[in-house]
Amino acid sequence: MSKTAFSRAEYAKRLSDVKARMEKAGFDLIICQDPANMCWLSGFDGWSFYVPQCVLVHLEEETPIWFGRAQDAKSAHLTTYLPARNIIPFSEKLIQHAVGHPYDELAELVRARGWAQARIGVEMDAHYYTARCHAHLTQGLPDAQFRNNGDLVNWARLVKSDAEIALMREAGRICTHAINRAVEKMKPGVPQYHVIADIYHAQTMGVDGIGGDYAAICPLMPVGEGTSTPHLTWTDEPLPKSGLVMLEIAGARRRYHAPLTRTMHLGKPPQKIADLAKVVVEGVDAGLATARTGKKAAEVEAAWQAVLRRHGLKKESRVGYSIGLAYPPDWGERTVSLRPGDETELKAGMCFHIQSGMWLEDYGVAISESFVVTDKGGERLCDAARELIVID
Amino acid sequence: MSKTAFSRAEYAKRLSDVKARMEKAGFDLIICQDPANMCWLSGFDGWSFYVPQCVLVHLEEETPIWFGRAQDAKSAHLTTYLPARNIIPFSEKLIQHAVGHPYDELAELVRARGWAQARIGVEMDAHYYTARCHAHLTQGLPDAQFRNNGDLVNWARLVKSDAEIALMREAGRICTHAINRAVEKMKPGVPQYHVIADIYHAQTMGVDGIGGDYAAICPLMPVGEGTSTPHLTWTDEPLPKSGLVMLEIAGARRRYHAPLTRTMHLGKPPQKIADLAKVVVEGVDAGLATARTGKKAAEVEAAWQAVLRRHGLKKESRVGYSIGLAYPPDWGERTVSLRPGDETELKAGMCFHIQSGMWLEDYGVAISESFVVTDKGGERLCDAARELIVID
Repeated sequence: MSKTAFSRAEYAKRLSDVKARMEKAGFDLIICQDPANMCWLSGFDGWSFYVPQCVLVHLEEETPIWFGRAQDAKSAHLTTYLPARNIIPFSEKLIQHAVGHPYDELAELVRARGWAQARIGVEMDAHYYTARCHAHLTQGLPDAQFRNNGDLVNWARLVKSDAEIALMREAGRICTHAINRAVEKMKPGVPQYHVIADIYHAQTMGVDGIGGDYAAICPLMPVGEGTSTPHLTWTDEPLPKSGLVMLEIAGARRRYHAPLTRTMHLGKPPQKIADLAKVVVEGVDAGLATARTGKKAAEVEAAWQAVLRRHGLKKESRVGYSIGLAYPPDWGERTVSLRPGDETELKAGMCFHIQSGMWLEDYGVAISESFVVTDKGGERLCDAARELIVID
Repeated sequence: MSKTAFSRAEYAKRLSDVKARMEKAGFDLIICQDPANMCWLSGFDGWSFYVPQCVLVHLEEETPIWFGRAQDAKSAHLTTYLPARNIIPFSEKLIQHAVGHPYDELAELVRARGWAQARIGVEMDAHYYTARCHAHLTQGLPDAQFRNNGDLVNWARLVKSDAEIALMREAGRICTHAINRAVEKMKPGVPQYHVIADIYHAQTMGVDGIGGDYAAICPLMPVGEGTSTPHLTWTDEPLPKSGLVMLEIAGARRRYHAPLTRTMHLGKPPQKIADLAKVVVEGVDAGLATARTGKKAAEVEAAWQAVLRRHGLKKESRVGYSIGLAYPPDWGERTVSLRPGDETELKAGMCFHIQSGMWLEDYGVAISESFVVTDKGGERLCDAARELIVID
């Protein structure tokens, strides 16, 4: 009763692309602990990434291998297309053990398959691939050659298929709905958590029978001076009579994410804030117009930065990043950044979040867009008001 | 305008306890990347743990040091009690950089403070302390002595203060409310995501003006055969006319978590499931009665396992773990497990989730409790129906 989100043909195509990248990079085997890579390769889906688990791809093995906790092996049987012989549980006693580690048994598995001397690519910077995971794995395979695989699978995920784009568009619709619901709910005096409760409800209810999945980041909603920094969450406090609120949320559909940021002002906004919002939207427009097939990632940033410069402003941090399939703690793909020096050539089907956040000394404004690259420019996935949203 | 959840005196007490543990273990400096440890030590709170960041504690430094992304440094100013000189941003260009890494600058900071030869304890198995974090940090500090600090701060968090227990109790009330709301909503034919939308709403709205925080794990709701594995999430499918639903959620209050699992049966349950549910509740009762000051963690498991044995059953996986302050991806503290061999002596104020999940071949039953250790036994933090909940 496996219920993968994509056809067997699509998984086969992904695997063959990944194997080609492995050959080129000189890997016999890659070990993927990033939950998004695990899901993209095998269909595996479940909130079990807080324990060591991974998907292995070997050049000579027909399908990937899932390795994880015994109680989660059944999830692998239910959510992946993998044959039973490639779903391998580790011993429960190794969970959070002071001396032993699940990757002692992962090393055993690799040896048992005859790959003890393989050239192995690991995801050195995947969120859950801890220093201890790496230490136990390398100690257990002293004859293997280990190298960072440089997020090889993340890079393979960069250009989305039509089926993936369809999910990204659904995620965009869900996000738009949730943003609109939040704006309706915001009034002076309404406790912040009341707004968030409605956002969660809208993110999950989705639109037209298309339900929402959990987002890789919780709703972020800095208020007042908090808008000068992007990652604060809500409190019990009521919204003020007057002042800024910044909201960053995503719609998620079968783990595909379309994030969006909007900035609200309770009461009449000061001129400098209204002006800044206009510059931000103008900058995003310039970025979207530039984000077409054949352009470089850095050129999108340059178009945005040129607008800022014209208005005497500057943004130090990157103005965006690649998005798609994601699990907590991040909805970025950790590959392309829209920033100086990133020479990645844009292709149709790549998706980005142009995060135009300006976090200044005491306040901030962000009005972002998720978009898919087309030959005409960046096509927006969401459809929320593109302005400083004033709430009276 | 720092708004820490606890008094300065409480943070001072924590720090002094941690320093005593450091001296005993032979560390001059510890580097904590676990977001819960960061928050517990400094008050820092924000969803920025998807990039490298940490809190440092040095024996001779009066307060901890926060190290993180420039745009999040303002969050540290707003949410911690730390002096400005101990809030240190790294260069934005190092975010997701192929060659450089934020911990190159962390190593610089450690050298600049004169600690290049320190005995440094790192959290080798903290979720976000990646293999690459460790590689850059150790390369940048070739004269330091690195060792795993063995979750030193996690262990310091084990016995909760009165102020922490108060938050755990509020979390328990929020969890009870959300479980009850879910049960009200479940009916045959109701799409799974509709139930989840109401759960999120209830988790966030909380009770009596006490708002809920985001939980470290999303609502888990396996249905039908899915109940044979614990970590599946919802789909668009309607609930069946007849069959099992398992729900695991937490209430979260200022990042303190009280999780709970309940099992529902739509329609009349088969006798074997009703019987199993009774055994599970009886086993949990035995565990709670045993979980009093002076007992060992393993004895709680043994009491539970004795009940199972009497009914011809067995559970391989641990029956519980320590809970408290938590961030995604897990609400466990990664210290004490209720399992054979864990000789930790229980003390009043420790909190656990006794996770009595029985995940069998084709179905499962779980009826768990979060509790605080007292000298009379485990005192439950939630108050939901303790039975197989039958929905007609």
